[in-house]
Amino acid sequence: MRAIQITEFGGPEVLTVAELPEPAAGPGHLLIDVSRAGVNYADTHQAENSYLSESTLPMVPGGEVVGTTPDGRRVVALVGTGGYAEKAVAPEALAWDVPDAIDDVTALGMIVQGASAWVLLRRSVHLEPGESVVVHAAAGGVGTIAVQLAKAWGAGRVIATASSERKRQLALDLGADVAIDPGVPDLTRALIDANEGRRVDAVLEMTGGTVTDQSLRALAPFGRLAFYGMASRTEPSPVRPATLMSHSTTISGMWLAHVFQLPGNVMRRALDELFALAADGVIRVVAGGEYGLKEVRQAHEDLRARRTTGKLVLDPSR
Amino acid sequence: MRAIQITEFGGPEVLTVAELPEPAAGPGHLLIDVSRAGVNYADTHQAENSYLSESTLPMVPGGEVVGTTPDGRRVVALVGTGGYAEKAVAPEALAWDVPDAIDDVTALGMIVQGASAWVLLRRSVHLEPGESVVVHAAAGGVGTIAVQLAKAWGAGRVIATASSERKRQLALDLGADVAIDPGVPDLTRALIDANEGRRVDAVLEMTGGTVTDQSLRALAPFGRLAFYGMASRTEPSPVRPATLMSHSTTISGMWLAHVFQLPGNVMRRALDELFALAADGVIRVVAGGEYGLKEVRQAHEDLRARRTTGKLVLDPSR
Repeated sequence: MRAIQITEFGGPEVLTVAELPEPAAGPGHLLIDVSRAGVNYADTHQAENSYLSESTLPMVPGGEVVGTTPDGRRVVALVGTGGYAEKAVAPEALAWDVPDAIDDVTALGMIVQGASAWVLLRRSVHLEPGESVVVHAAAGGVGTIAVQLAKAWGAGRVIATASSERKRQLALDLGADVAIDPGVPDLTRALIDANEGRRVDAVLEMTGGTVTDQSLRALAPFGRLAFYGMASRTEPSPVRPATLMSHSTTISGMWLAHVFQLPGNVMRRALDELFALAADGVIRVVAGGEYGLKEVRQAHEDLRARRTTGKLVLDPSR
Repeated sequence: MRAIQITEFGGPEVLTVAELPEPAAGPGHLLIDVSRAGVNYADTHQAENSYLSESTLPMVPGGEVVGTTPDGRRVVALVGTGGYAEKAVAPEALAWDVPDAIDDVTALGMIVQGASAWVLLRRSVHLEPGESVVVHAAAGGVGTIAVQLAKAWGAGRVIATASSERKRQLALDLGADVAIDPGVPDLTRALIDANEGRRVDAVLEMTGGTVTDQSLRALAPFGRLAFYGMASRTEPSPVRPATLMSHSTTISGMWLAHVFQLPGNVMRRALDELFALAADGVIRVVAGGEYGLKEVRQAHEDLRARRTTGKLVLDPSR
């Protein structure tokens, strides 16, 4: 089968098309004929070995696929690695059936980004109706869903941030009440201004560095910031618990890998709700572009340069 | 009227009985004939000017009273300062009517400690039925209510910590499943062991220093630690957001003063529920001792030496 293989860690240049043997599905695993593979920010960390979990070589990158199993089930699945290929293997526990009403891009957009948005709003910041919420990187995979979910769940005011006029317009099109540039000198002030002079109740943050620091300072008492990524590759300042106390502030780290360990079948509940909202047209996955295997370097370059908007997918058949 | 006055900041020795003019209730305020005043840890910070909000001199300490208004309402109220006196003045917004079924000690035990326990469990850590929760200082004012509330709300396992055998026995009597000494060398291990080998879902922490640090490390993925005091007067280590992310950990600061700013009448809802549970005998305030004005230094010494258990009150009539 054709696949993308990495034999040394690095940037987009290490992604190479290769002819590899088909993987075998052991007990408790499913072989999936890949229709589309998702291309995520996390894959760029995987390729350069800077992700939260360590990678080993040689590796076929790519953590998520949608496709069909030998017995005809259509599933979207998390594969860890191996997704950028014509065939992939997923643990049965990490494969979920997809309703016919849901297309490939939507299925892939929900498994990581949609579920992240769901968990962030429901479990990390516990957004209540009427509350204000800042969605950073609002034109990104998680952000586009988070903006729509927050509105669907009755947020009082959704404040989007995005780095270009085009991305801010997308956030507004998706229902954000206001969209601002996060690169302003005083982001704390800009967020409060965007919330009509009031401090904000919740923030979804995946940038890191000063964006995290300044967002924390924009929180109202009992405000919550969920930190779920560090796209700038810069750590925020360490946080003093005493400072959290004196402002009644919550900071909540979230790594989706842990969601699969949660009791109560949280992932299935999240996907059921997300698929139902998508089928009803309440929320949608923004398609961000489809790439063939030979174009995968371009996909990573586009992601890293923050040129993309919406869900990127790889078609392993070309 | 008789009251306790402070003319210089310091330890228990600065608390002096004085004859002072009665305070006057301006617009939007209530004059309260004090039946009992609560004596809290926060008052020791107030007296030495180490509290989150700064104190000014001369000052009558004491933040909470129960008593009657000139028009015959029986209220429990937050007064900021001025509670250790025969008469006190409270903003109307910070005075709540008390049902007849609730005695003075119970009313005082609910306004700060009970409401704190309610907010910590409901809003800070969002305890779910079946989850495990560590209650540090379980024999203290907040702790005794938190242990009982957690059980009443269906916690899977309540793990109490307290510094003496007598306090641990109290926590067990109140419904804790297990009670341990927080002073062990490896508290992380001890908490996991006390949870039958599993990491814990939630922690209520008011000690600071290594107790906070080691409790954070005992959390399961999606675990939450609420930090609402620093009785050891030692700061915990600063927390890296990236570490919170890699463990899907939440740390939530809570300062009760902010609860009064929350929309939705959170305080009234908390007190209604707490008073109803107390009237039904589901939870109770542990009486920790009653002191006359002349014994107030002893009360602070007992608090600081961690000799007390349960709610301390001051009777300004003697």
